[in-house]
Amino acid sequence: MKAGIIGTGTVGRTIAAKLAQLDHAVMMGTRNIAEKLAVTEKDNYGNPPFSEWLSKNNNVKLGTFADAASFGDIVFNATNGSSSVTALIMAGTRNLSGKVLVDISNPLDFSNGMPPSLLPGLNNTNSLAEEIQNTFPDAKVVKTLNTMWCRLMIDPGLIGNGNHINFIAGDDSGAKEEVRKILKQFGWKEENIIDLGDITAARSTEAFVTLWIRVRNALNTGAFNFGLVK
Amino acid sequence: MKAGIIGTGTVGRTIAAKLAQLDHAVMMGTRNIAEKLAVTEKDNYGNPPFSEWLSKNNNVKLGTFADAASFGDIVFNATNGSSSVTALIMAGTRNLSGKVLVDISNPLDFSNGMPPSLLPGLNNTNSLAEEIQNTFPDAKVVKTLNTMWCRLMIDPGLIGNGNHINFIAGDDSGAKEEVRKILKQFGWKEENIIDLGDITAARSTEAFVTLWIRVRNALNTGAFNFGLVK
Repeated sequence: MKAGIIGTGTVGRTIAAKLAQLDHAVMMGTRNIAEKLAVTEKDNYGNPPFSEWLSKNNNVKLGTFADAASFGDIVFNATNGSSSVTALIMAGTRNLSGKVLVDISNPLDFSNGMPPSLLPGLNNTNSLAEEIQNTFPDAKVVKTLNTMWCRLMIDPGLIGNGNHINFIAGDDSGAKEEVRKILKQFGWKEENIIDLGDITAARSTEAFVTLWIRVRNALNTGAFNFGLVK
Repeated sequence: MKAGIIGTGTVGRTIAAKLAQLDHAVMMGTRNIAEKLAVTEKDNYGNPPFSEWLSKNNNVKLGTFADAASFGDIVFNATNGSSSVTALIMAGTRNLSGKVLVDISNPLDFSNGMPPSLLPGLNNTNSLAEEIQNTFPDAKVVKTLNTMWCRLMIDPGLIGNGNHINFIAGDDSGAKEEVRKILKQFGWKEENIIDLGDITAARSTEAFVTLWIRVRNALNTGAFNFGLVK
């Protein structure tokens, strides 16, 4: 499988490295390649500069947003939620058309301090995933993996023997099935992937992230998730 | 302990019956006693008319909203979220002053069909619990028990040996401690009551309920909850 990853932050790197490890062909996309490679400082979260990361993950290609979207049979949106739609427009409507577009981003609004709320217009009766689906009606948007620490996204077995949950939502059943296969490659157990139905369910999973952040603050660790108790 | 329960729906009945069973003195409050007792049909959820319920729970008193608020050393808001503030205003600012006010309600908006969103103005950057706290600054509002099926509220051991979570939030630590004691009487284990901090955390737990409803629809049962996996 050829995967395009839009965004080069922690989530993008995590997904890209895992997909490459699984022998998928991976291209990451960034706004401006030269600028991205010229960065020599750590980012705000203490991550090494991208060039350093890329040299250690040399089975991952780097291109523009459009290059990565064009490259991928499947495309992952791992950009900051506040700039996702802009980045995807730069990736190009044609390059996303007919493809599965996995949306991992959250429309977090840090402008009023911590903990964040959701961006105006992208909460309660709308969501980032719906905004993306509406902007790219020919893409098959699937919302998933946005509700946990990024290390758990690609290695759920890290805690609780992998017995915790991941939600999936989207309008296209076939696209959800394709994404489910990748999730299983990541280590997710079938019974822990809860299908919430159409893409409007992203309203709830994106809002859930504000709760996740408050729980993280209460526990003082991101290495947790929620399990289904029945 | 004397408890006043504002609201006579399923949640109010569940909490009232449990508190009475625990030998607390309980008065439920309703808008209009005569009207409430005159109802002979089941409600929209198929519950028996309140008079029938009350005759089987004759250790529970019935009064007006104001009677119940005045009676209680602690007051539970178990009204419909869309009318909670109005009901509590009828209960009376004086009757709530200085008291712990446990808010179990959710500001669900069913006006656009199922699944619900949250009411305009009571989501994302505000919450029902904050609205109540701001309206009654001398009450000590504690948000809890609003994130699960009502039978689990008072009997968490019903599933998973009680190993699933309940959130608690509020500005007053002493009030939260008092509520925590009641929660333990209900069967909640100390380690499963997660303190999310001040009352603004209700923004996240109330939004979480929209996710809960979507999961309930996916599972086709309300007899589930989320456990913390670390």
